[in-house]
Amino acid sequence: MNEHLKQLQTWVADQSLDVAYISNFTNINYFTGFFSDPEERITGLFVFPDQEPLLFVPALSIEAVKKVGWPYAVVGYLDHEEPFALIADALKQRVASPLRWGIEKDDLAVFKFEAIMRQFPQATFPADASRFIEAQQLIKTPSEIAQMEEAGRQADRAFAAGFKALRTGITEQGVVAEIEYAMMKEGVMHMSFDTIVQAGEDAADPHGGPEQVAIKPGELVLFDLGTDNHGYMSDATRTVAFGQGVSAKAQELHKVCLEAQLTAQAAVRPGMRAAALDKIARDIITKAGYGEYFNHRLGHGIGMSTHEFPSIMAGNDMLLQPGMCFSIEPGIYVPGVAGVRIEDCVHVTETGCEPFTHTPKEYTVIA
Amino acid sequence: MNEHLKQLQTWVADQSLDVAYISNFTNINYFTGFFSDPEERITGLFVFPDQEPLLFVPALSIEAVKKVGWPYAVVGYLDHEEPFALIADALKQRVASPLRWGIEKDDLAVFKFEAIMRQFPQATFPADASRFIEAQQLIKTPSEIAQMEEAGRQADRAFAAGFKALRTGITEQGVVAEIEYAMMKEGVMHMSFDTIVQAGEDAADPHGGPEQVAIKPGELVLFDLGTDNHGYMSDATRTVAFGQGVSAKAQELHKVCLEAQLTAQAAVRPGMRAAALDKIARDIITKAGYGEYFNHRLGHGIGMSTHEFPSIMAGNDMLLQPGMCFSIEPGIYVPGVAGVRIEDCVHVTETGCEPFTHTPKEYTVIA
Repeated sequence: MNEHLKQLQTWVADQSLDVAYISNFTNINYFTGFFSDPEERITGLFVFPDQEPLLFVPALSIEAVKKVGWPYAVVGYLDHEEPFALIADALKQRVASPLRWGIEKDDLAVFKFEAIMRQFPQATFPADASRFIEAQQLIKTPSEIAQMEEAGRQADRAFAAGFKALRTGITEQGVVAEIEYAMMKEGVMHMSFDTIVQAGEDAADPHGGPEQVAIKPGELVLFDLGTDNHGYMSDATRTVAFGQGVSAKAQELHKVCLEAQLTAQAAVRPGMRAAALDKIARDIITKAGYGEYFNHRLGHGIGMSTHEFPSIMAGNDMLLQPGMCFSIEPGIYVPGVAGVRIEDCVHVTETGCEPFTHTPKEYTVIA
Repeated sequence: MNEHLKQLQTWVADQSLDVAYISNFTNINYFTGFFSDPEERITGLFVFPDQEPLLFVPALSIEAVKKVGWPYAVVGYLDHEEPFALIADALKQRVASPLRWGIEKDDLAVFKFEAIMRQFPQATFPADASRFIEAQQLIKTPSEIAQMEEAGRQADRAFAAGFKALRTGITEQGVVAEIEYAMMKEGVMHMSFDTIVQAGEDAADPHGGPEQVAIKPGELVLFDLGTDNHGYMSDATRTVAFGQGVSAKAQELHKVCLEAQLTAQAAVRPGMRAAALDKIARDIITKAGYGEYFNHRLGHGIGMSTHEFPSIMAGNDMLLQPGMCFSIEPGIYVPGVAGVRIEDCVHVTETGCEPFTHTPKEYTVIA
């Protein structure tokens, strides 16, 4: 049994549970190596304190489960069958009457919750597996960090493809097309999220997407991208100048944002509070007069999800520890002027941190 | 107020609810025109029986909400704020004590459900908005069908790009890259699901993905793809021969599958049971001796999701009606031989159905 699954089984036993029901697709991948696209069909991992786990999947995924080498039981269901009746049958073969359940409260939809209660009216739900898994995923193993380093190298190549694509007349969407095409041609079939390319004032909307509008010389261009390397994600942001003529104001935003990013990244230490790291970057931006334009947290955890724990933000007293992985991504978004964000994801080491991406962050003009 | 939102408000009033909480991102788009990527941040649409609705979003999405022209209240929250406390404040300004809630049971995670119960300990949940919205989305309006026709035309162009990319030495993944690149270059930035290209025996796994393996002359190549046209999806499958030398057995699978697809598509009538349509295709495949290799339902509904109602399968007594949109996609998967699937999505008309995609389905050799 792999280490992650063994830890989950230990937790199930420690909590005196009869069964834990893992419903989140990313977490099923974390424990089993099997990933299935979220869809309306039911997929569930059932883990018991003292016997082998059970994977429940749509019948047409059984081959895929076998392909990844899942060594335990797998039960399939056909589209016209009632999945929770089959789940109940399979569980009753293992536990006469599963009373104490662990569920993922962050994931499990109310209809599944009610379906369990219909099948097992005596069931209670004393333990939230979301909290356990969140804590479990907080510290990455060396092999997970190696996967994320590879994802980071992919992201660096994606930046290179994007910078190379910048030329007069190309649109934001056109640059995205070149980036994702370059990635797919080397076999990276999934970005970790929709690639963001925003030029000029567009970048002042930190959640906007690429438009079908030509990038103009003299604009700052923000690239926020990442790849999915066998389930492990990268995520990084660079803001570069396209040609000459970027306004002094926009250049100042870049200078302040870069100082905040570099200072925070250099300040990471095990034992530091997450909130303190956010404050280091935020103070620099606030002191420069742009505090109100930095309207999101400094960073988010990353791993098999692009957003997980730890959250690097005000109010989070969590202490940083070696093996934690998160983004450091200050941004300054001045409507009508420009938006700048600079981001590396890092893993905490014994003495500081190491970034997963290495594309230069200094102010760069792409001619 | 748009028609969909007005219908939802009427439902809220009819059910004597104080508020409905719409949590599903696709459905929020359906009602508001605002789409935000699923992530761990909270986005919710709150609809009242007798006053204007309220959209609750992360603060950094407020600009995007305004951009789509949402005319009602929008409340934002910052990353360090407790969203459900803010939601409770905003609700209490509108309803002194919201007791009767409608929630989307298919979507709402248990942790959000519990957060509501903490804020409103007297709350009851007598109505499942998932069932109402599912029924509401079952019949598409003419303007929705027009959006889906455009998505279908995009899918036809995607097939053309894929067939053009077939050449000696190219891999399944390489063909996917060419398809998605062609789509992005024309401004179609999202496929409706991961493009599937499977050659030869790979196609016998109906849920497998594209591999980094060269497609060999004499193999059947299965293309399953679709696009996202402003939130409305296309989805279609073609299986073509790459060069000469396809085995007689594989050609027979194509012949049987095509007959099942064409016969079912020609048989669609308003008033017909969904299960009866599944049976028409299944009987043809079973009679030819391949029944056991057709291991999924004939089709799924499609609209703003690639999988919605109606489900075209055994046991579904739902009567087909004009405006319903679904796939007709028989498949035959013989391990070690080949996999064939042929699929159009259609909308039911007064007299039959019209497909959204028009790429020829007949056995085609691409040299």
